Amino acid sequence: MVLEKNDRLILLTNDDGLYAAGLRTLLEVIEEFGKVVMISTMESQSGMSQALTVKTPLRVKLIEETETRKVYTCNGTPTDSVKLAVNQLLERMPDLVVSGINHGANASVSILYSGTMAAALEGCLYGITSVGFSLNSFSPAADFSVCREYVRTVMRILINEKLPPGVCLNVNIPATTAEEIKGIRVCRQSKGNWKEEFEKRKDPMGRTYYWLTGFFQNHEPDSTDTDEWALANNYVSVVPVTVDMTAHWYLSELKDKFSE
Amino acid sequence: MVLEKNDRLILLTNDDGLYAAGLRTLLEVIEEFGKVVMISTMESQSGMSQALTVKTPLRVKLIEETETRKVYTCNGTPTDSVKLAVNQLLERMPDLVVSGINHGANASVSILYSGTMAAALEGCLYGITSVGFSLNSFSPAADFSVCREYVRTVMRILINEKLPPGVCLNVNIPATTAEEIKGIRVCRQSKGNWKEEFEKRKDPMGRTYYWLTGFFQNHEPDSTDTDEWALANNYVSVVPVTVDMTAHWYLSELKDKFSE
Repeated sequence: MVLEKNDRLILLTNDDGLYAAGLRTLLEVIEEFGKVVMISTMESQSGMSQALTVKTPLRVKLIEETETRKVYTCNGTPTDSVKLAVNQLLERMPDLVVSGINHGANASVSILYSGTMAAALEGCLYGITSVGFSLNSFSPAADFSVCREYVRTVMRILINEKLPPGVCLNVNIPATTAEEIKGIRVCRQSKGNWKEEFEKRKDPMGRTYYWLTGFFQNHEPDSTDTDEWALANNYVSVVPVTVDMTAHWYLSELKDKFSE
Repeated sequence: MVLEKNDRLILLTNDDGLYAAGLRTLLEVIEEFGKVVMISTMESQSGMSQALTVKTPLRVKLIEETETRKVYTCNGTPTDSVKLAVNQLLERMPDLVVSGINHGANASVSILYSGTMAAALEGCLYGITSVGFSLNSFSPAADFSVCREYVRTVMRILINEKLPPGVCLNVNIPATTAEEIKGIRVCRQSKGNWKEEFEKRKDPMGRTYYWLTGFFQNHEPDSTDTDEWALANNYVSVVPVTVDMTAHWYLSELKDKFSE
C-alpha cells in the first residue's frame, strides 16, 4: 500500500478478533472511503474497556497488504492497538479512527466496558475524528449487511463535518432487516446498569469458581431521547460521546459541601 | 466479622495488589468509619480501566477475618472485584465503595484508563456512594501518610451528604508534606492526553517487541479550575465524575448534521 498525499487514511480496529464478521464488514465498507490500516488481536477481547497492557511486551505482525489496505495483528487491547498504530505503524496521523462493527450493542453504560468504544475514545484523545459501530446482536451468526448503509451515512458526515475536540460518536444499529429500520436518531446515553448474576460452579477438584453473566436494566424505559429507546424502536442510535467525565452540573453544589 | 444492623459497611478495593501501601493505608483509615470488606488481586492490575473478565473463571479466597474486616483476594479486575463482592460476597449492599489509594495520579483523562476509578464508577453504577483516591506518585516507596487527613475529610462528607445518582468522586492527593498541601479544590477534569513513546526492543530471538511508555500532556496548563492545576499547585483535587459520557452540549448541533 502506497499512501499518496491526498489519500484519506483510515485506522480500523475492534475487539472481536481478526476474523470477526463485524470487523470484516466494516473493512469492506470503509475501503470505499480511503486507504485502510487495520489492526486487531487474533482472538476476541470483549469487555476490555480502555485497558492498557503494561506488564507484557506488545508484539505486532503485518499479515496482509494490498494496494488499499494493510492488516496487522497484535497481542494488545483495542486501546493498545490504536496507540501502537498511531505511534509506530502509521506513516502519518490517520484522518479517521473507526472501530467495530461490534457483536453486541454498546448503548447506555455498556460504553464504560466496551473495547470497541475505548478504541474510538483513544482516537478522539489523539484529536482524530473517531467513531465506534455496534450491532445489537451477540449472535456469532449475526447478519451485518444491514449495517452497510448506515456506516456509509455516518462516514459521509464525519468526512464533511468536524466533531468538536474530545467528542466521538457511538453508533448502535438494530439487528433487524433494512426495511424495518426506521432511520437514525441522534440521542443521549440511557441511564441504566448491568444486573449481574454470577454463575457459581465447582471445578473437578471441588473448588468454587464464578462466571460473570448478567442482563441490562434500562432505568428510563419511557424516555424517548435515549439510545436504548432508539434501538428498541428500530432506530440506529448516534450518541456524541465525550472524554470529559466531569459532572459539570454538580460542581457548584459539591463546592458548597466542601466549604461548609 | 459480624455485621450488625447499624454497622456501616464499606467495600474497599484497588488495582495495585493486596499488599500495596496505598491500599493498606486506606484500609486503616476507613476502618475508623465502619466495617470493611476488602477485595483485591494479589498482583497489581494497573491500567485495566473498566475491564471485565469474561473468558476465564473468577476465583475468590477469604484470607483474613477480624471483628472489623474481611479480606478477600480474587483473580479478576477491579471492576470484577466490585461486581463479585456486591453480588456474591456481601450479605447486603455496602454503604460505600472506596477505591485506592492508587500509586500514581488519576487526574485528567487518566480516569479513562484507571482501574482505581473504574471500581468507584462500578460502585456508582450500583447506586452506592463511591470514591477513588490516588496519590500523585508512582514511586513504590511513596509516603501515603499525608493522605490520611484528606481521606477522613472526604469520608465525613460522603457519610453526611448524598451524591446524585450516577456521580462519584475522583480524589487526587499531591505527593508532598502535610505542611505544603494548601487544602482541597473541587474542580473539573483537565483537558489533556498521554503522549506515547513506545520503546521498541529486540528479544533474544531477534524479534521486535514494544513497551508502552509515555508522558501526560496538559492541554490547558493556564486554567486554574482543573485537577491538573490543583495537583501542580499542591491542592487535593476533588472531581465529581459521571457515568454519563454523552456530550449533551453537542446534541442539537449533531442533530442538525444528521438532518441535512
